Amino acid sequence: MNGVASLSAAHRVAVFGGTHGNELSGIALVGLWLRDGAEIRRRGLEVRPFMANPRAVQERARYIDTDLNRAFTPENLSFQGEDLPYEVKRAQEINQIFGPMGSPDAYDVIFDLHNTTSNMGCTLILESSNDHFNLQMVHYIKHAVAPVTCSVLLNDHPRLHYSTTRSVAKHPIGLEVGPQPQGVLRSNIFESMRLILKHALDFIEHFNGGVEFLPCTVEVYRVVERVDYPRDSNGNISAMVHPDLQDCDWEPLNPGDPMFQMFDGRTVQYKGDCTVYPTFINEAAYYEKQQAFVMTKKETLNANGIKVTKS
Amino acid sequence: MNGVASLSAAHRVAVFGGTHGNELSGIALVGLWLRDGAEIRRRGLEVRPFMANPRAVQERARYIDTDLNRAFTPENLSFQGEDLPYEVKRAQEINQIFGPMGSPDAYDVIFDLHNTTSNMGCTLILESSNDHFNLQMVHYIKHAVAPVTCSVLLNDHPRLHYSTTRSVAKHPIGLEVGPQPQGVLRSNIFESMRLILKHALDFIEHFNGGVEFLPCTVEVYRVVERVDYPRDSNGNISAMVHPDLQDCDWEPLNPGDPMFQMFDGRTVQYKGDCTVYPTFINEAAYYEKQQAFVMTKKETLNANGIKVTKS
Repeated sequence: MNGVASLSAAHRVAVFGGTHGNELSGIALVGLWLRDGAEIRRRGLEVRPFMANPRAVQERARYIDTDLNRAFTPENLSFQGEDLPYEVKRAQEINQIFGPMGSPDAYDVIFDLHNTTSNMGCTLILESSNDHFNLQMVHYIKHAVAPVTCSVLLNDHPRLHYSTTRSVAKHPIGLEVGPQPQGVLRSNIFESMRLILKHALDFIEHFNGGVEFLPCTVEVYRVVERVDYPRDSNGNISAMVHPDLQDCDWEPLNPGDPMFQMFDGRTVQYKGDCTVYPTFINEAAYYEKQQAFVMTKKETLNANGIKVTKS
Repeated sequence: MNGVASLSAAHRVAVFGGTHGNELSGIALVGLWLRDGAEIRRRGLEVRPFMANPRAVQERARYIDTDLNRAFTPENLSFQGEDLPYEVKRAQEINQIFGPMGSPDAYDVIFDLHNTTSNMGCTLILESSNDHFNLQMVHYIKHAVAPVTCSVLLNDHPRLHYSTTRSVAKHPIGLEVGPQPQGVLRSNIFESMRLILKHALDFIEHFNGGVEFLPCTVEVYRVVERVDYPRDSNGNISAMVHPDLQDCDWEPLNPGDPMFQMFDGRTVQYKGDCTVYPTFINEAAYYEKQQAFVMTKKETLNANGIKVTKS
């Protein structure tokens, strides 16, 4: 199973900022590279910086009409008409420029740059456990940034998986760096994101150049469940993330551990029967999605070795 | 000068949350107290919790049309007509309920609850160095929460002073607690705000009940200047708050210290000729106000002793 697979070169790469208009690291980096792309130029690669939701960026809002990073459904991409929500029209444009999704004409890689208010550090988000190119890339990045931790979140959950902007590409990959408030640009977060992207592009350049990557394993956190805040009978939130859980993304949550602190002081404990690893804890954008945090389970994936197909 | 002044009892007190609809601590506390006010009830006092900008709270936005916390100008309060911006209409309503501003009918005290993305901890904001009732109150609170620090920001700068929601009251006082991202509710920030308000109400109850407060001194940080981000010729931000300054609210900034880090790596230093104390460093809401931080100077104010006028 874990042989060395031969894959096509990845010549066309896009870097998206501003899929959410209030996540400023990617917006600042893409803005910088649109003015001067020297930093992201690589041999044998087209690397295209792109502002995904310019109207939301202008408004410093997550979105105008609907979340662009949930908008890439087959229905949305095929809707016709003038009265579509802004982000649905934008999804169609993006699919036209960088896709069509699932076709041989699609871009090879889209990096989508995001920030979170959660204490997640550097996180790479994968949508499939079978994309060995991406698995090798995250393996490369994890080693390149060590001893700094770069976690890998795998979201291929049948119900919790969502239709991302980056899913237009053959190899979609999200970069999520935090904690950073919405509408704020912090230098430490900016530089972390910049460094991860540098290593990611280096990897692609090496791969295209003929470097063979041996079979390896990658530790990932697989999304298993979404947890909402406790609410009163009117649907209002009646508790906060417990201080023992706040900022503890990627740390084990064991049966009996505190999860929420009610406004009246009582504690709500985790009642599950096995250890989970919460992440996206108290993310600002997820209040409207009825989500206090995501539960994940730790898993080790096997990545095939890969080398570029000789042309 | 520092005798014991006789002041009227402060019978009518309001607690405002949601002057900005994305600052969740005050919104959650006022929501809680609107449902059950037992926690803020005090002998001989009317304490009224109030949601200042309900539409912005609904939208989780700072404001709908214009910043409510800059809207209480004499012009705005006297405008007539149907087509006024939402917050101007709301300012007029608030002035009618809790004012009129500057009149004997105005509420005695308005506490306005705010959050900041800056690392300011607990901060009380005063608009005058001559309001001895407020100076005695902040002196009381600072001692009550010690050893936790509660800083006092004085903004009576002729140009940088602004027309706040709370300015309707005879004794306006802002509570600013951070760091907390916009749209996020953190339990530690919530409980800090709750505790400060408890002590503030205790102070008023003691004062009304006849406790005499002796002359004292209060250390304050006086607003002296607003500092913008470095910008390019198109007006775009070209630098971030320097990592040595980020999160260092209230700490001394000395001539030659780094202030900003340009995207190209260069450092911008503080060129002033005396030590200042920056605050509101990298506050999300102040990007649109062209403000990276506020410079303050440390000062010691003398507060007269106060006691309640016997009726």
